[in-house]
Amino acid sequence: MFTLPQKDSGTPTTSLGSVSQQGLHGNHGDGLEGECSRKPDQKPLKLYGVGDPTAMFSSDSPYLSSRGSVIKWFWDSAEEGYRTYHMDEYDEDKNPSGIINLGTSENKLCFDLLSRRLSQSDMLRLEPSLLQYPDWRGHLFLREEVARFLSFYCRSPAPLKPENVVVLNGCASLFSALATVLCEAGEAFLIPAPYYGAITQHVYLYGNVRLVCVYLDSEGVKVKGLILINPQNPLGDVYSPGELQEYLEFAKRHELHVMVDEVYMLSVFEESVGYHSVLSLERLPDPQRTHVMWATSKDFGMSGLRFGTLYTENQDVATAVSSLCRYHGLSGLVQYQMAQLLRDRDWINQVYLPENHARLKAAHIYVSEELRALGIPFLSRGAGFFIWVDLRKYLPAATFEEEMLLWRRFLDNKVLLSFGQAFECKEPGWFRLVFSDKTHRLHLGMQRVRRVLEGKSQVAEDAPSC
Amino acid sequence: MFTLPQKDSGTPTTSLGSVSQQGLHGNHGDGLEGECSRKPDQKPLKLYGVGDPTAMFSSDSPYLSSRGSVIKWFWDSAEEGYRTYHMDEYDEDKNPSGIINLGTSENKLCFDLLSRRLSQSDMLRLEPSLLQYPDWRGHLFLREEVARFLSFYCRSPAPLKPENVVVLNGCASLFSALATVLCEAGEAFLIPAPYYGAITQHVYLYGNVRLVCVYLDSEGVKVKGLILINPQNPLGDVYSPGELQEYLEFAKRHELHVMVDEVYMLSVFEESVGYHSVLSLERLPDPQRTHVMWATSKDFGMSGLRFGTLYTENQDVATAVSSLCRYHGLSGLVQYQMAQLLRDRDWINQVYLPENHARLKAAHIYVSEELRALGIPFLSRGAGFFIWVDLRKYLPAATFEEEMLLWRRFLDNKVLLSFGQAFECKEPGWFRLVFSDKTHRLHLGMQRVRRVLEGKSQVAEDAPSC
Repeated sequence: MFTLPQKDSGTPTTSLGSVSQQGLHGNHGDGLEGECSRKPDQKPLKLYGVGDPTAMFSSDSPYLSSRGSVIKWFWDSAEEGYRTYHMDEYDEDKNPSGIINLGTSENKLCFDLLSRRLSQSDMLRLEPSLLQYPDWRGHLFLREEVARFLSFYCRSPAPLKPENVVVLNGCASLFSALATVLCEAGEAFLIPAPYYGAITQHVYLYGNVRLVCVYLDSEGVKVKGLILINPQNPLGDVYSPGELQEYLEFAKRHELHVMVDEVYMLSVFEESVGYHSVLSLERLPDPQRTHVMWATSKDFGMSGLRFGTLYTENQDVATAVSSLCRYHGLSGLVQYQMAQLLRDRDWINQVYLPENHARLKAAHIYVSEELRALGIPFLSRGAGFFIWVDLRKYLPAATFEEEMLLWRRFLDNKVLLSFGQAFECKEPGWFRLVFSDKTHRLHLGMQRVRRVLEGKSQVAEDAPSC
Repeated sequence: MFTLPQKDSGTPTTSLGSVSQQGLHGNHGDGLEGECSRKPDQKPLKLYGVGDPTAMFSSDSPYLSSRGSVIKWFWDSAEEGYRTYHMDEYDEDKNPSGIINLGTSENKLCFDLLSRRLSQSDMLRLEPSLLQYPDWRGHLFLREEVARFLSFYCRSPAPLKPENVVVLNGCASLFSALATVLCEAGEAFLIPAPYYGAITQHVYLYGNVRLVCVYLDSEGVKVKGLILINPQNPLGDVYSPGELQEYLEFAKRHELHVMVDEVYMLSVFEESVGYHSVLSLERLPDPQRTHVMWATSKDFGMSGLRFGTLYTENQDVATAVSSLCRYHGLSGLVQYQMAQLLRDRDWINQVYLPENHARLKAAHIYVSEELRALGIPFLSRGAGFFIWVDLRKYLPAATFEEEMLLWRRFLDNKVLLSFGQAFECKEPGWFRLVFSDKTHRLHLGMQRVRRVLEGKSQVAEDAPSC
C-alpha cells in the first residue's frame, strides 16, 4: 500500500479531491439513475477530512447519528430523479406518455427466456436445509456450482475451487464487505475514472472507505487497493490480457489489493471483442491480493434476484467476508435456484447466451444508428448495456450545471438518462444511455432524446476526447 | 441519551465491563450454537476502549485491516463447536450416531406444513419487476402486506402503515443497520441480560456499537438506546403491558431509542401466557424512538429464508435504514412469496399456528418432564423454542471453565447445547436447550443429555436464582 503525497499537509480537512459525492445515490435501481436528482439550489455535498469525515457533518435529524445522517442524505438526494420516474413510469398500455428509463443499467431484453427457465419444475425444491440457517459463505452445493461455472466461463487454466467462493446478495454488498475487511476507516481504493459511481456509496456507507480517481489530484489518503471494472462501466471498454497484467503488476509492486468487478463478463455481445477474465490468466502476479467479483444481475438480467459471488484464493479475506455474510445472506430457495441455473450449461450456451447476445446486438445497432443519424459522437465497444454519448455540443457552456439542465430537459421530455458527473467524468456533457430495453420502449426513448436535442441543438465546441 | 458515570476516568482504555466477546459467534446458525467453541488454551478476547477498540488489536493477517481481523476472529472462534457439529451431523439413516443439535434456536417441527404451503402454485410468480432493481425499502406490495399482518397479529389499536415498514434480509441485518444509523462508533445500547448473545456481533461488526448489560458494571460509554427482546431469549419470559410501559417510559425520560425484537411473538404456545406486542399499546410514550423488529425466521420456522422487517414511525430512521438496505436486499421472488404467505390468513390461523403451537407444546412437555425426572430446575414460560436449564449442580466448581468442560462433555456425547456465558449469564452452569425439534431427534438428544448428567452427577450447590 502507499500514501498519496500531501500537497498541503497543514490543512486538517484535506479535500478528497475530485471524488465528489453528489449524485452517487439512488433509492431504487443501480444507484445511478437518480444521480441527477440534486436540486439545483441544494448545496453540493463534499465529504472532507480523512480521519473522520462524519464529524464535519451536522446531523440534520435529532434521531440519527452523524453517520446516519450521511447515510440518509445519500437516499434523500436521489429522490427527485427517481421519484419523478416512479410517479410517472412508462407503461405501454396504462401510461404510454410516462417516462422511459434509459438510465438504469439493466438488461430487459430476455425476461421471456428467464421467466420460462425459472418456472421449470426443477426450480422449486423445498428441503429442510434450505429453510434452516445456512453456511454463511453460501450452501456448498452452490459454491461448487459457482466454481465450475467460473472455471468454464472465465476459462481458468486450472479448475477453480469451492473453498475460494463466497456467495452473497449482490456485488454492492461485496464492495461493502471487502472495503471493511481490507481497509481501516478513512483509507482508500484507487479507481480509473470515469467509473460506475455507486461504488462510492458501497465502500463508504458501512466501511467508511474512499475512492481516489486515477486522474490523481487527491491527497493525504492511504491507498489500500485498486478497483478494476471489466468490461468497464460506463465506457464499455474491455481490458486486454496485457493491460490486465500491467494493472496487476503495478498493484503487486505497491502491495495493493485488486478488486476485479467482472459483472458484465458474459454481456460481451460483439464477437470480435476478445474478452479475458482475470481468472483466465496463466499466473496471477499476486493471487493473495486479487479478489474477483461476479453476479447474475447483469449477465442474467436479474438485478432483483440479489445474487453475487466473490472468488479469492486468500482465505483470510474469504473468511472475514464470510463473517459479514450474516448481513448479506440470501434465501436458501434462491441459492438452490441459482445452482440449478448455473449448472444448466445447455440452456446457457444454446438458448440464453446466443439469444441474449443477438438481442443486445440488435438493440445496440439501432441506438448507434440513431446517434449517427443525429451526428452525435459516442463510445461503445460491443460490451455491456450502455453507450457513452458525447452531448457536449448541446451545452451552451461546458459546465456541470449545464449538463444537469440538459439532463432535466430529457426528464421533462419523459426520458431518464445518466449524466457524466455521476461517473466522475471530468468533461461536462457526457451521458450514459442504456440500450438493453425492448424495441418499443427504445424507439420511443430515442424519439424523445432526438426531440430534445433537435429542439435545443447547439454548435459543436470540440471533438470528443473523454 | 446518557453517559454512564466513569468510575476511573483517568484510564484511557476503559473496560467494557462484563460484555465479554468470547463465544458470541457462529459461522452457521444463529450465532450461539458455536459459542462454546473457544479452545481452552485460547486467550480470551476482550474488546477494550471506547474510542477505537480495533486499535487495541494486532492484526493477525497481513492482508486484513484491524477491523477485518476482528471480523475474522468472530468467525474463526466459532469453528470448534460448529465444525465438529457439521462434520458429524446426525442423520436418522446416514449418521444415527452423529451429533444432535439442541443449540440452534430453530423450529424444525413444521417443515411439512411449510413445504406444502410454499410449493403451492401461487408461490412461483415471475414478472419483470421481481427480477429488476427493487425499491430498497422492499416492494410496496410486500410492505402493505407486512403492515396488515402486523396490525392483525400485534393487535394494533389503529392500522399500521406501509410507509413505516422497511423489509430486509433478517433481523441480524436490522440490528446492524439500526446500530449504525442511531449511534456513533463506540456508543452503546443497554440490554437486559442474560440475552441472545449474537446481538453483540450484529451491532459491532459493521456499526462498531457496544452493548451494556443492564446489571451495570460498565462505564464511560454513551448509551443511545435500549434493546428489548419479547418474548425474551434465553429466558422465554414475556413482558406484561405494564413492564413494557415502564421500560418505554424509562427510555423516554433518558431520550433512549428502543429496539424491540419481537421475533418470537407468534411462538407463544401456552395459551395462558398473555402476549402483548409493543405495537398493541394504546399510546407509545416516544413513538419516534420506538423501532420494532419482526421476522419469519422463528415464527415461520424459516431462518434460511432471510426475511425480516422494521416498523418505525420515525421517517428519518426508516429512510436511513432503507439507504443501507442496498446491502441487505432480498430477492424479488422471495418478496413475492412472503407477501403470499403473510396474506394467507386462513392457512396461518387455521392450519399453521394451531398445529405449530400444538407441536411446540408437546415437545416442550416432553423435555420438561425429562428434566423434572432428572431433578433439574429450569425456567420456561411457554414461549419460544428453548428452556433455560440450571445445571449448576453438575459443575465441580462454579466457574465458566467448568461450564465449558460440561458443554464439551455434551458435545463428546454427541449433543450440542448453548452455554450460559454466551448469553452473559453471571452464574456459571446455565444452559439453553432447544426443544423445537422432531420427536426422534429430541428423544435421542435427551438420552444423551441424561447419559452425561447421570455419569457425572454432582451434589447441588444452591437453589436456582438466575
